[in-house]
Amino acid sequence: MVVVLEQHATEQDVERIIKVLHDFGFDVHRSTGVNQTVLGAIGVKPDFDTRQLELLPGVAHVYRVTEPFKLASRSFKPENSVFDIKGVKIGGKEIVVMAGPCAVESEEQIFAIAEQVAKHGAKFLRGGGFKPRTSPYSFQGMGEEGLKLMRSAADKFGLLVITEVMDSNQIDLVEKYADVLQIGARNMQNFNFLKELGKSSKPVMLKRGLSATIEEWLMSAEYVLSGGNKQVILCERGIRTFETATRNTMDISAIPVIHAKSHLPIVADPSHGIGIRDKVIPMARAAVAAGADGIMVEVHNDPDHAKSDGAQSLFPDQFDELMKQIRIIAEAIGRNVS
Amino acid sequence: MVVVLEQHATEQDVERIIKVLHDFGFDVHRSTGVNQTVLGAIGVKPDFDTRQLELLPGVAHVYRVTEPFKLASRSFKPENSVFDIKGVKIGGKEIVVMAGPCAVESEEQIFAIAEQVAKHGAKFLRGGGFKPRTSPYSFQGMGEEGLKLMRSAADKFGLLVITEVMDSNQIDLVEKYADVLQIGARNMQNFNFLKELGKSSKPVMLKRGLSATIEEWLMSAEYVLSGGNKQVILCERGIRTFETATRNTMDISAIPVIHAKSHLPIVADPSHGIGIRDKVIPMARAAVAAGADGIMVEVHNDPDHAKSDGAQSLFPDQFDELMKQIRIIAEAIGRNVS
Amino acid sequence: MVVVLEQHATEQDVERIIKVLHDFGFDVHRSTGVNQTVLGAIGVKPDFDTRQLELLPGVAHVYRVTEPFKLASRSFKPENSVFDIKGVKIGGKEIVVMAGPCAVESEEQIFAIAEQVAKHGAKFLRGGGFKPRTSPYSFQGMGEEGLKLMRSAADKFGLLVITEVMDSNQIDLVEKYADVLQIGARNMQNFNFLKELGKSSKPVMLKRGLSATIEEWLMSAEYVLSGGNKQVILCERGIRTFETATRNTMDISAIPVIHAKSHLPIVADPSHGIGIRDKVIPMARAAVAAGADGIMVEVHNDPDHAKSDGAQSLFPDQFDELMKQIRIIAEAIGRNVS
Amino acid sequence: MVVVLEQHATEQDVERIIKVLHDFGFDVHRSTGVNQTVLGAIGVKPDFDTRQLELLPGVAHVYRVTEPFKLASRSFKPENSVFDIKGVKIGGKEIVVMAGPCAVESEEQIFAIAEQVAKHGAKFLRGGGFKPRTSPYSFQGMGEEGLKLMRSAADKFGLLVITEVMDSNQIDLVEKYADVLQIGARNMQNFNFLKELGKSSKPVMLKRGLSATIEEWLMSAEYVLSGGNKQVILCERGIRTFETATRNTMDISAIPVIHAKSHLPIVADPSHGIGIRDKVIPMARAAVAAGADGIMVEVHNDPDHAKSDGAQSLFPDQFDELMKQIRIIAEAIGRNVS
Repeated sequence: MVVVLEQHATEQDVERIIKVLHDFGFDVHRSTGVNQTVLGAIGVKPDFDTRQLELLPGVAHVYRVTEPFKLASRSFKPENSVFDIKGVKIGGKEIVVMAGPCAVESEEQIFAIAEQVAKHGAKFLRGGGFKPRTSPYSFQGMGEEGLKLMRSAADKFGLLVITEVMDSNQIDLVEKYADVLQIGARNMQNFNFLKELGKSSKPVMLKRGLSATIEEWLMSAEYVLSGGNKQVILCERGIRTFETATRNTMDISAIPVIHAKSHLPIVADPSHGIGIRDKVIPMARAAVAAGADGIMVEVHNDPDHAKSDGAQSLFPDQFDELMKQIRIIAEAIGRNVS
Repeated sequence: MVVVLEQHATEQDVERIIKVLHDFGFDVHRSTGVNQTVLGAIGVKPDFDTRQLELLPGVAHVYRVTEPFKLASRSFKPENSVFDIKGVKIGGKEIVVMAGPCAVESEEQIFAIAEQVAKHGAKFLRGGGFKPRTSPYSFQGMGEEGLKLMRSAADKFGLLVITEVMDSNQIDLVEKYADVLQIGARNMQNFNFLKELGKSSKPVMLKRGLSATIEEWLMSAEYVLSGGNKQVILCERGIRTFETATRNTMDISAIPVIHAKSHLPIVADPSHGIGIRDKVIPMARAAVAAGADGIMVEVHNDPDHAKSDGAQSLFPDQFDELMKQIRIIAEAIGRNVS
Repeated sequence: MVVVLEQHATEQDVERIIKVLHDFGFDVHRSTGVNQTVLGAIGVKPDFDTRQLELLPGVAHVYRVTEPFKLASRSFKPENSVFDIKGVKIGGKEIVVMAGPCAVESEEQIFAIAEQVAKHGAKFLRGGGFKPRTSPYSFQGMGEEGLKLMRSAADKFGLLVITEVMDSNQIDLVEKYADVLQIGARNMQNFNFLKELGKSSKPVMLKRGLSATIEEWLMSAEYVLSGGNKQVILCERGIRTFETATRNTMDISAIPVIHAKSHLPIVADPSHGIGIRDKVIPMARAAVAAGADGIMVEVHNDPDHAKSDGAQSLFPDQFDELMKQIRIIAEAIGRNVS
Repeated sequence: MVVVLEQHATEQDVERIIKVLHDFGFDVHRSTGVNQTVLGAIGVKPDFDTRQLELLPGVAHVYRVTEPFKLASRSFKPENSVFDIKGVKIGGKEIVVMAGPCAVESEEQIFAIAEQVAKHGAKFLRGGGFKPRTSPYSFQGMGEEGLKLMRSAADKFGLLVITEVMDSNQIDLVEKYADVLQIGARNMQNFNFLKELGKSSKPVMLKRGLSATIEEWLMSAEYVLSGGNKQVILCERGIRTFETATRNTMDISAIPVIHAKSHLPIVADPSHGIGIRDKVIPMARAAVAAGADGIMVEVHNDPDHAKSDGAQSLFPDQFDELMKQIRIIAEAIGRNVS
């Protein structure tokens, strides 16, 4: 930690600040310049609240010099994490595609969609049994029945299953059907839940919160990792800004930033990021071009009658076209899409 | 719902749109102007996804004409809701003050603080047994032991208890000690949890999420209200913006906006909103001047050694001074602080 | 305009609202539903302040049904605008690359860079003579001398010149040297300046303001267009959000949104959007994949000693590699880079 | 400047970084801890771009230790700046009220309003002759004719004049009529214009940009101050956030933050901050309670027929009521309103 003192800090101020640092267990290294004195506080205390020092008379700024996350950071693990999920590798050279409806609605629907997305190269079937909805009056999902249908459809067409868990007490149930547990943006800082996920043996895909900084997102990954579950996949799905023309603002730059700061794979979800079908395609291409390890897109066999998010779901033909385009883009950067 | 058509929409487009509206169960009222055609879609469907129409050829815009929340809205209940909690009324003429430490740390600490805040006019003792922390390596609270101490301290000095519940499976435990259940900003859209809180007999204080719009906040209140719990208090605690000089940006304007849109009481929490002690006081005064029904402030007998949030906790003397100031301000607007 | 009335609006309220609309010159069309009355106000008044109605007793919401911009909108001009600038077409099938240093620093520097970027396929030389700097103590550019050097370097290597104009009183001067006038993000709503640019015969590239909505950006384009200058190019360069890991958040989704709303070409500037060299490349690829009509990147022959923005400037070799990648990506979407 | 090195930085990295710092003219002070090395770079270079170092291999973070502004900072001038403008002091104990219409519309209008606001205690008449409007089709103000009327009305009722200058080439003209030159939010970073204002002998009131950080705002003040004009008043008028229920989000916390960082007076403009009349009053009270040195509010004798911003203008009676309330609030904090 670096403590920068004010230009007019008195010697008495400096001595008090040094005493406080000693009381908190830090070693202190003083460096006096012409205009300004800087104190180096040595001793790693990841949870130290720097405001405790900022308030002291004579202190101008306090900077942390170590990142608050450890297990998630690339300096802890320099090479990419690659997770092998029943033979599908995520985080490696191949870009993995996850596709399916917003919610499972019926046996007919989920089998029809699974067939389509498998045919065009998806590796995962996405879809929800439990749906987080802003309104208590909206369709809340088919529950376990939906998960069963999804599992059967995925098995029939050689796909893996990724689906959302909304609460600690759903983990056991969802684990029975899913290959990857998806954690929604609104739960990114539900800390008790993250601790429980740390005990799961299933990989977890952690969506970025609507207003979460990249550092906070990695801290949430740290909760899961520190609980013992090493398989965390990150998912960018758009952040909240002042712009109202799109549902959210997809932060494509999070992709290269995460690759620099962390060894964990990152997937992009343009369907939620942009919210309108005809703009999902360019954003999916952009995510691949920026280096995403996977994309997740909503596809529906009959979007006009979907029970939720139909407006952002692709038609099967559009999905096919998208797959063709991203195969070429992947090549441009030395990667591939199956 | 109002559907505005594009200027160059063809008659065929219009007919298709009308057919889709009929299929969704709406009655349609067509109004053709010189430049533009507008369709009124009649029939209340609170969860209808307007993007289903926005995608149709010929549609320019779709507007909802009814607010998505009902029980929380002032048009549903025009007069203010006033909750009587063991004799303390919130939502009425009196401005209620909630004060105490960030976290319960020891018997000595909580009793010392309770005595101070009671003496200066607080009605509620605030403090946490369970603490949501960004880092898994930070102090996570004393748990039930902390709640017990808090209850005893509150009882001794004639205070009520408000404390945070972090998870559905903590509700039963916390209800044993608390008079009001506080729900943190990061849980504002934890929908399963909100449903469980709807079944509680205790009042709930729902903090605004860091990037929640006022409409979403009221939708979350609606989850609790529609579950049967009519006692929901709202709490503004700062939103996330681009500004980095403050921890969050306290949205003081949410106070008059909530009063216009809803009958529910609103409390302001300047300690979390601003994050630095010497700015908590002006922001607490501002909240009262803007019409808040209560304020919640962190007070600590020894902030320099607090285990969490010491930097934003007031010294007891500062709390006393603040109480004197807000008594005068309350008068200016025809209210009072006890 | 559509005026939605409150459910409990009285007949007297309705009559007063209708009278006010008549006074403002609107024709009114009343449509009464079971729960709600909606008024259609007919008559185009692009500058009408809808808040004048929102305040009236009985009014719930007011919606504009026409977009506030006209000349910039795709409904006014359905086909893409393609500008032919001395033989280089922007807005058509070809993706145009603009490259060069942040600021012109010396004859040697600008000639060395111009040679490099021309060799690898850029069509425009970018660079500044006048630099808007946050601090009055920072390097402010070489002024006219820089523009002269830039023009010579561009001419020698067959490039066009794009450079920033900062003020109305610089237009005449900059027009002597530039092929396209670049308007900075901070000037996007400098309305007097926009009016002056409307009188110029040179194309204008209008950067999006740091917190400008897409609608406001198009309104600023409208200022230039309505002044008589039809050649407006838009440039996305990142918006301000809460994220601090990047200089700005590049809003890649603005590209498909602009293409849907407007006929004007859109260029992406990832150098300013992201601010750090190694992330400029993935973001430039993403912009092309999302459909940008051009990209503008900073390239420097010696970034480590650049007088400004060296950290976000590419080395010539990196620029070469980027050009190779975007040529492949362009193909994937049926476009090309020369 | 403090340069924190990565944990795995090699000795070769460290030596290169030190060499680069020397080349830039810094003295370097090395401090090696158990896990991490920190370099202190001594030598004040206010415009140094820290990204030049962040890119070097082995560098984890770079922190500036001096604030980029100087003349505007409280450490440069510890006591409050109080400006005496024809006998009205701003920045002292008295809270100054500026009131008037959005735009001057006619002789009758401006005289009627001036009389009202003077009667209730305003010291300044506000109003615009030149209006910055988002749409080129909106009312753009009466120009010089409006300024003349405003000056006469102010003189008749013993008021001072504050009005907006939109461009460098309007300064001479506006100076003839105004006592304070108001600079709009959209011009906050129009740097050429700020330099010109630095040469004016009239006080300047600088509004905060819609997405300007407090540091950037003070940097813009620095432009004016460093040009030789010492009379800069800051004005908070709301920032842009994701919230759509209000026009902007008034950042009340900017008031105590500015008071801590700077000696310059700060005024609050709740009319633009909130945008709807009935919420202007609570926000004006909040600003005073938070310590604002002045407030600026829009008042109109006939808001329903105002040519601009009628919806956010107070009726004269409401203004009177507001003045009564803020007189009491001012007392609570040891200040006064005339």
